[in-house]
Amino acid sequence: MVIKHLHELYDNACNRGPVNIAVAQADDENLLRALDRARSAGFVNPVLTGNKDKIEEAAANSGFDLNNIIIAETDTPEAACVSCINMIKNGSAEIIVKGNVKTATLLRKIIDKDKGIPNKQLISHLAIFESPFYHKLLCVTDAALNISPDVNEKAAIIHNAVELFHKIGVSNPKVAVITALEYVNPKIEATLHAEILKQMNHDNLIKACIVDGPFALDNAVSKKSAIHKNIDSEVAGDADILLVPDLNSGNILYKCLNFLGGAISASVILGAKVPVVLTSRSDSEQSKLYSLALAVNLS
Amino acid sequence: MVIKHLHELYDNACNRGPVNIAVAQADDENLLRALDRARSAGFVNPVLTGNKDKIEEAAANSGFDLNNIIIAETDTPEAACVSCINMIKNGSAEIIVKGNVKTATLLRKIIDKDKGIPNKQLISHLAIFESPFYHKLLCVTDAALNISPDVNEKAAIIHNAVELFHKIGVSNPKVAVITALEYVNPKIEATLHAEILKQMNHDNLIKACIVDGPFALDNAVSKKSAIHKNIDSEVAGDADILLVPDLNSGNILYKCLNFLGGAISASVILGAKVPVVLTSRSDSEQSKLYSLALAVNLS
Repeated sequence: MVIKHLHELYDNACNRGPVNIAVAQADDENLLRALDRARSAGFVNPVLTGNKDKIEEAAANSGFDLNNIIIAETDTPEAACVSCINMIKNGSAEIIVKGNVKTATLLRKIIDKDKGIPNKQLISHLAIFESPFYHKLLCVTDAALNISPDVNEKAAIIHNAVELFHKIGVSNPKVAVITALEYVNPKIEATLHAEILKQMNHDNLIKACIVDGPFALDNAVSKKSAIHKNIDSEVAGDADILLVPDLNSGNILYKCLNFLGGAISASVILGAKVPVVLTSRSDSEQSKLYSLALAVNLS
Repeated sequence: MVIKHLHELYDNACNRGPVNIAVAQADDENLLRALDRARSAGFVNPVLTGNKDKIEEAAANSGFDLNNIIIAETDTPEAACVSCINMIKNGSAEIIVKGNVKTATLLRKIIDKDKGIPNKQLISHLAIFESPFYHKLLCVTDAALNISPDVNEKAAIIHNAVELFHKIGVSNPKVAVITALEYVNPKIEATLHAEILKQMNHDNLIKACIVDGPFALDNAVSKKSAIHKNIDSEVAGDADILLVPDLNSGNILYKCLNFLGGAISASVILGAKVPVVLTSRSDSEQSKLYSLALAVNLS
């Protein structure tokens, strides 16, 4: 299956009906606006944590109707995160959304081996883009969490992304390992990683996807460019997943697509027992809404 | 002065009249097509090096008219590069253009301390983009040569870029040091580099420009995004020059703008006694033409 538009994921979410989501410290006006739209569309049912007075103030300022909304009152950011995690554990919520709490605080609680809800080898950030310059949805990982992943961590990042693609109906996604070059240069570690990851895919250590690389970005997203460089690969020019070398390059690519590429995006944190949505103030309203919809697709 | 379109640099080049350029091993059909357009526009006068038979064949295939064109015949790629360098030394050419020769071969000859034409502390690649999503020309450096520059090398890369901006008429360019974050994280070296480069600018060790950072890319190119993050900087949202963390991130940004951003670009190698133009097969015809025009602006 080929997915061309984020709207398709949004429609899936609407069809799936409301999913309970736990919001960590919900006194965040921008987030409440996005939650209001997602609730109106019928795909989320938010349960809020945090200080009740502050939540009521933020709700009033953002036009979020608190009628029939459960507020689990908590005193500290840490307590709000724990409250959300407990909702996941007892089955009363299926997604966690970050509100007015630091990302590090929330993620530390989530990956805690004893009291958290870790699942996979590592948690990773994934963004899916709808670009006016590409023929289908295109994913970038990891643009936000893993600073300088080694090759095993990169395999885990691929694994998280592939599992997501399976859940949204893309059965054998094409993974392009991106570097500055389309050939191995021992001075550029990411090109060596690409060779190893390709071999791991060949040896079935990375399954249910096609991994190829190293690619310069143009070879991964432009068939014409791949032909110019005599690259014969079914991933070339048709990648679903772009595995980036590190956090700097991933974040720059993410921001370039959103701010200098006319793309729209949805993002989610993968690798915990449930999807985690972190929206940032600089994300557009639409991007926040699509991120919630993406998480509902995965729950 | 604010330059909005690459066409302005092209017009400048046309007004300046023909500049002699030395072409290293000219049997490259795509390059000859671009040279033909630049010659018709009146801003270059190519002097070709390489094997005469091969050049004549490539010229015939690409419709390049060899009438009144000097061919300095050479036997090897190295000899072609040396021939070009000698033309620079004796004043018979003002720009070097790479033809069908490896980049490394040409650059090694150029930076050779004894026989080459090095000038600045280091050579660096600079690309100028005209993006439909930005309000003026935007430069990315270094996307092609320096793999993992240290802070002194980054200062030299900035210096090369600033000198270019002065030559095209932008007197005090705004340099944004790009990383994944808009604050210092000791685990991400590029954020530390940003602090040092900013201080070097403050201490007048990096002159005639405004350096600020670290910035995530969005803060450098979007005023709205900078305001969201409470960043108060005259560089934020209005950068002329994006200094990237390393080759991987720079190349990915370069390719993203060109292949997923609808941008057009011109590129040049800086830091030698003359501008050096390296066009790649995957560059568009227009991009090759604009690169030649940019080099003429600098000569």
